[in-house]
Amino acid sequence: MPDSWIDLPRDAEFGLATLPYGVFSTGGDGATRVGTAVGAHVLDLGAAARATGSPHADLLGAPNLDALLAAGRPVWDRVRADLVEWLTDPAHEAAVRPHLVDRDAVRLHLPFTVADYVDFYASEHHAANVGRMFRPGQEPLTPNWKHLPIGYHGRSGTIVASGTDIVRPTGQRKSPDDPAPVFGPSVRLDIEAEVGFVVGTPAPMGGRVAVDGFPDHVFGVFLLNDWSSRDLQAWEYVPLGPFLGKSFATSVSPWIVPLAALESARVEQPAQDPEPLPYLRGSAPWGLDLRLEVRLNGHPVSRPPFSQMYWTAAQQLAHMTVNGASLRTGDVYASGTVSGPEPGQRGSLLELSWSGKEPLRLPDGTERSFLEDGDEVVITATAPGPDGTVVHFGEVTGRILPAV
Amino acid sequence: MPDSWIDLPRDAEFGLATLPYGVFSTGGDGATRVGTAVGAHVLDLGAAARATGSPHADLLGAPNLDALLAAGRPVWDRVRADLVEWLTDPAHEAAVRPHLVDRDAVRLHLPFTVADYVDFYASEHHAANVGRMFRPGQEPLTPNWKHLPIGYHGRSGTIVASGTDIVRPTGQRKSPDDPAPVFGPSVRLDIEAEVGFVVGTPAPMGGRVAVDGFPDHVFGVFLLNDWSSRDLQAWEYVPLGPFLGKSFATSVSPWIVPLAALESARVEQPAQDPEPLPYLRGSAPWGLDLRLEVRLNGHPVSRPPFSQMYWTAAQQLAHMTVNGASLRTGDVYASGTVSGPEPGQRGSLLELSWSGKEPLRLPDGTERSFLEDGDEVVITATAPGPDGTVVHFGEVTGRILPAV
Repeated sequence: MPDSWIDLPRDAEFGLATLPYGVFSTGGDGATRVGTAVGAHVLDLGAAARATGSPHADLLGAPNLDALLAAGRPVWDRVRADLVEWLTDPAHEAAVRPHLVDRDAVRLHLPFTVADYVDFYASEHHAANVGRMFRPGQEPLTPNWKHLPIGYHGRSGTIVASGTDIVRPTGQRKSPDDPAPVFGPSVRLDIEAEVGFVVGTPAPMGGRVAVDGFPDHVFGVFLLNDWSSRDLQAWEYVPLGPFLGKSFATSVSPWIVPLAALESARVEQPAQDPEPLPYLRGSAPWGLDLRLEVRLNGHPVSRPPFSQMYWTAAQQLAHMTVNGASLRTGDVYASGTVSGPEPGQRGSLLELSWSGKEPLRLPDGTERSFLEDGDEVVITATAPGPDGTVVHFGEVTGRILPAV
Repeated sequence: MPDSWIDLPRDAEFGLATLPYGVFSTGGDGATRVGTAVGAHVLDLGAAARATGSPHADLLGAPNLDALLAAGRPVWDRVRADLVEWLTDPAHEAAVRPHLVDRDAVRLHLPFTVADYVDFYASEHHAANVGRMFRPGQEPLTPNWKHLPIGYHGRSGTIVASGTDIVRPTGQRKSPDDPAPVFGPSVRLDIEAEVGFVVGTPAPMGGRVAVDGFPDHVFGVFLLNDWSSRDLQAWEYVPLGPFLGKSFATSVSPWIVPLAALESARVEQPAQDPEPLPYLRGSAPWGLDLRLEVRLNGHPVSRPPFSQMYWTAAQQLAHMTVNGASLRTGDVYASGTVSGPEPGQRGSLLELSWSGKEPLRLPDGTERSFLEDGDEVVITATAPGPDGTVVHFGEVTGRILPAV
């Protein structure tokens, strides 16, 4: 990849290997615009497209990513090639440079309109840890777990942008010893470090998407914190699954990393045994070597390896549509908690504190089993880019406010 | 209520007691318009509003109900009063009559943009029947069932208008005797006769809606068929709930009956024991005396009484928001299968055929345990209106096409 005319250190957080898409506003009128993060800047893509005479000025001049998502893979590829050209060809500098904004000066927003939201459960280590804690003495994994990517629908309306404060949820809980349920603020508030995927190209009802159709439909990848109230969830979830224990808030990172930025991060997924049914098989690997980090009040507490996920996002997409369900532009699906095999690779406090039995000791001298009011959680990730570069995902953050 | 200048027999399907809202198109340009059903007609409400100089001509002239839903209770009440006036005051006849369209000549559409979709499980009889079939020898109801309205999120993107053909879904199933899951078309395809509610007035995150806030937020009521693949569902649903067994399609009736039409249908719900927590208590009854009928290939097979539902829609709304979750205009929630205490009041074939052990004998000489290709299901409902009138819900219909 050629160098940029921008002063971009090789280890810049957002180099030319990433070029993610987001939606930003600056002080003034609060109007939202589509941009890409590059080094210390955000490039206003609508303005740059107009200044360079791009045929995609309408798409990029929209107030969010919806139109770009709907435009489909060939347009996504052309726009990404344009971005590289604008930022590397000195002939474009005069037209483009005026549309760079200081990244510290922008506010970032939820970048697209969320249609449906599905949350999967694709880490064998996470599912087995949860099974050992919740169903001791039984097989850690349910009998279906290795045959299909288990998932459920979540609440789209409470997906919020990174940085949104999270108010501690209130509801019913009942421990086995309580004679009746108790009402009040959740006392086991948790995170789930996950990776999210957003659908661009829709599919009609009955238009099953094969595993190999993944890159034709999925636009990009981001980070997601699936805030979870373990006490609400434990009491409510039999027999129809999680509901209020999850629906109060889900935070997403503001920069959508296009699938094209992750070619160098593609790896074989872990071996699958038993072999999945044919509709869950593809011809190319879609494991992704994303390296997550979870920080609690500034202290790294976990480094979950996304490469260890049992089910890939391509398999999840094929599963989600095999029954005839349609896809809409803006459909989001998430991986489920990313947990690796090692204790320091677990993506939830539930696992990190082993359900509160082994509280985390933080370097500031405090202990945590679950989140306390005022706690701040930051999840970041990187992935290998081409030629030794690093793709950055930015971060998804949130701070816990007391229940009201 | 005064008489209409329209020739409206007292037993007309849509008399002045109902005045539901829907979205229709006529041949020509296919443009969709907001209308109300009245007798054999649909009144084009945008055109009528313009012709009468209504201040709501913009809302009613929209291509769907979204703007009316968002307008809130005071506007809903004024618009309904206007409709009655237009249709009863002879002074309006000349302006309004030209905008009546033959109801047989219109095509009806999904009337609003669906935001989130939640499905509850509020019939004690249904939940107990399912428990007896699926967990024999155990308590029919799970321990949480009488403490909270159990619900889960469904797929908004596959909510379809009544009359849409339903393609038999395909997926994995595994009976206890199978050594491994089998892939293919569902062999236990079912209905669930339900009642749906649509949110008009939104609520912000943290803006908990009390039970008594129900009529301020919910615009109206309709019928819903939650098509269910019992074999897909049985294999997938532990531990995170139903997913592909439900997400292929959900059909809704096209006429939204405003809450104001159901004042005479309000009844006390069944006694609740134990008494629910305070946030699930209200000061006025929101049981609703809706009388459903399910017809299979023209033959009535069930008459589920909605008045017997253990949890009301007002309690469900309070529960759904108690954890801080927001509401959006267009959020849909459904009651769960409506089943009464008698065998002829069960709202699913699973219960009517007792999981296939007691197939239904239809008057045409055929038997059914689950749906066969070509089967058509029609769900209708009525409710008591004021002064001995009857409120009609129209119907939700769908026909099963073979798997592809």
